[in-house]
Amino acid sequence: MKIAIIGTGLIGGSLALDLQSVFAQATVLGIDQNDAHLDEALSLGIIHQKATFEDLPEVDLVIVAIPVDAALQVVPKILDLIPDHALVIETGSTKKPICELVEKHPKRRNFMATHPIAGTEFSGPSAAIKGLFAGKTNIICEVEMTTFRLQEKALFIFKEIGMRIRYMEPKSHDKHIAYVSHLSHISSFMLGKTVIEKEKHERDIFDMAGSGFESTVRLAKSSPEMWTPIFKQNRKHVAKSLDEYIANLQQFKALLEGEDYDAIFEEMHGVNRIKEILNGMGKKF
Amino acid sequence: MKIAIIGTGLIGGSLALDLQSVFAQATVLGIDQNDAHLDEALSLGIIHQKATFEDLPEVDLVIVAIPVDAALQVVPKILDLIPDHALVIETGSTKKPICELVEKHPKRRNFMATHPIAGTEFSGPSAAIKGLFAGKTNIICEVEMTTFRLQEKALFIFKEIGMRIRYMEPKSHDKHIAYVSHLSHISSFMLGKTVIEKEKHERDIFDMAGSGFESTVRLAKSSPEMWTPIFKQNRKHVAKSLDEYIANLQQFKALLEGEDYDAIFEEMHGVNRIKEILNGMGKKF
Repeated sequence: MKIAIIGTGLIGGSLALDLQSVFAQATVLGIDQNDAHLDEALSLGIIHQKATFEDLPEVDLVIVAIPVDAALQVVPKILDLIPDHALVIETGSTKKPICELVEKHPKRRNFMATHPIAGTEFSGPSAAIKGLFAGKTNIICEVEMTTFRLQEKALFIFKEIGMRIRYMEPKSHDKHIAYVSHLSHISSFMLGKTVIEKEKHERDIFDMAGSGFESTVRLAKSSPEMWTPIFKQNRKHVAKSLDEYIANLQQFKALLEGEDYDAIFEEMHGVNRIKEILNGMGKKF
Repeated sequence: MKIAIIGTGLIGGSLALDLQSVFAQATVLGIDQNDAHLDEALSLGIIHQKATFEDLPEVDLVIVAIPVDAALQVVPKILDLIPDHALVIETGSTKKPICELVEKHPKRRNFMATHPIAGTEFSGPSAAIKGLFAGKTNIICEVEMTTFRLQEKALFIFKEIGMRIRYMEPKSHDKHIAYVSHLSHISSFMLGKTVIEKEKHERDIFDMAGSGFESTVRLAKSSPEMWTPIFKQNRKHVAKSLDEYIANLQQFKALLEGEDYDAIFEEMHGVNRIKEILNGMGKKF
């Protein structure tokens, strides 16, 4: 069995490590436009061989884990090149553009659109973690568009690496993920910006920062190469979520300026149930 | 030696546990207006005895770890009651109001205003953690107002429990802490609110939330009892930081609506150095 990992960063690299356990006999090929990443992935044992698109006619499984704008460029080419029995799993943070793009492709039934909700704020092969996906959710879009035999293969893999499956329509995925993921990133980036702008004597001031600030600003370490195309592809939903977030912040500010501390208390008290909501999911973070 | 812990929650409880190690022979008294917390603190071994203000004339050290509005009520009474040799350490998140309040108190030199930058989003005695303060920063305000012998005593304690010391003026503390702590809490509460408001079918949607959302929204679990008086006392600095944060979010939204993706990339790239800033502090979170 031959597996091609296209994009040997955090997600592709972590999947490569897990797939080596699931298919002990498989050869894992790495394809990446960043040759330094490819060398790094090879030396870390994430892939067995460096490869190119010319190797795709020989592979059984392709993982696409690259920025969502690049995915729109290369997924049709990958589908053109793979053999008829191969499965292509794409893993980006937006699902509508890629699903629309491949809708009429002759090999649409070899393709599966997924979004594994897993990751860290780091990137590149050195960020890859074996076991990253255990206990995490994988969202599969338009599952019925993938041929049944390849659905089974994909589900076998996701089960082996410990993922829970949720099925969603691409549009619904993109709308809701704007709130629970994309908005968090903007909130965090702009918090980091506000504090950096304010503070000239950084060392002094960041000495005052505790684990709360660190937690809230963690996503501001994320890769702009990955996130710019996500915001582009999901622009409308992201802008809407950002509008609602700004309106809530403005309302909070108005309560503060009006010194309505009972209302401020009630605001926070109401949101406190995020505790039960997150616990209720039975998730381990 | 007798130590009184006033407020047996996360901070007071954690300090009580550490102080039992520093002063193995000490008796730790607990004072709390919540009698259930006091019973819990006793059963968890956080305190040795339940006590009241009537016991204060017998104590050598008082830790005040209660909401900042309550501190303004009780610190003068505590200073009235303690013996001449005793040290009172207050630990709230705002420093100017308490320092102004005790400025002319006859026992001002028995008082030390501190802000240990440590904690979690949880509260109450069950949230107390032994070793919470190791490697963390403690901000001491107006150190010169505390008598030298009691400064030495306080510094001995902070050294024993592993804290780094930073000296600041109360006004400067309150201004900067608005950015690195208070603003993070509002950002997180309002993110939680925005997502909860949007999502009617919560279980479905929060299944899509990953560790990034969890991290960014973590502070929204914080106690409104503790945070309402902090926002009240630091209203002006908090409102200013909130203004700047909202302006940055609006500017990001304008870039998104104008589809200026180069500028969006540069925004994120610029904030990415939060990575080096946080690492540069040599902090362990």
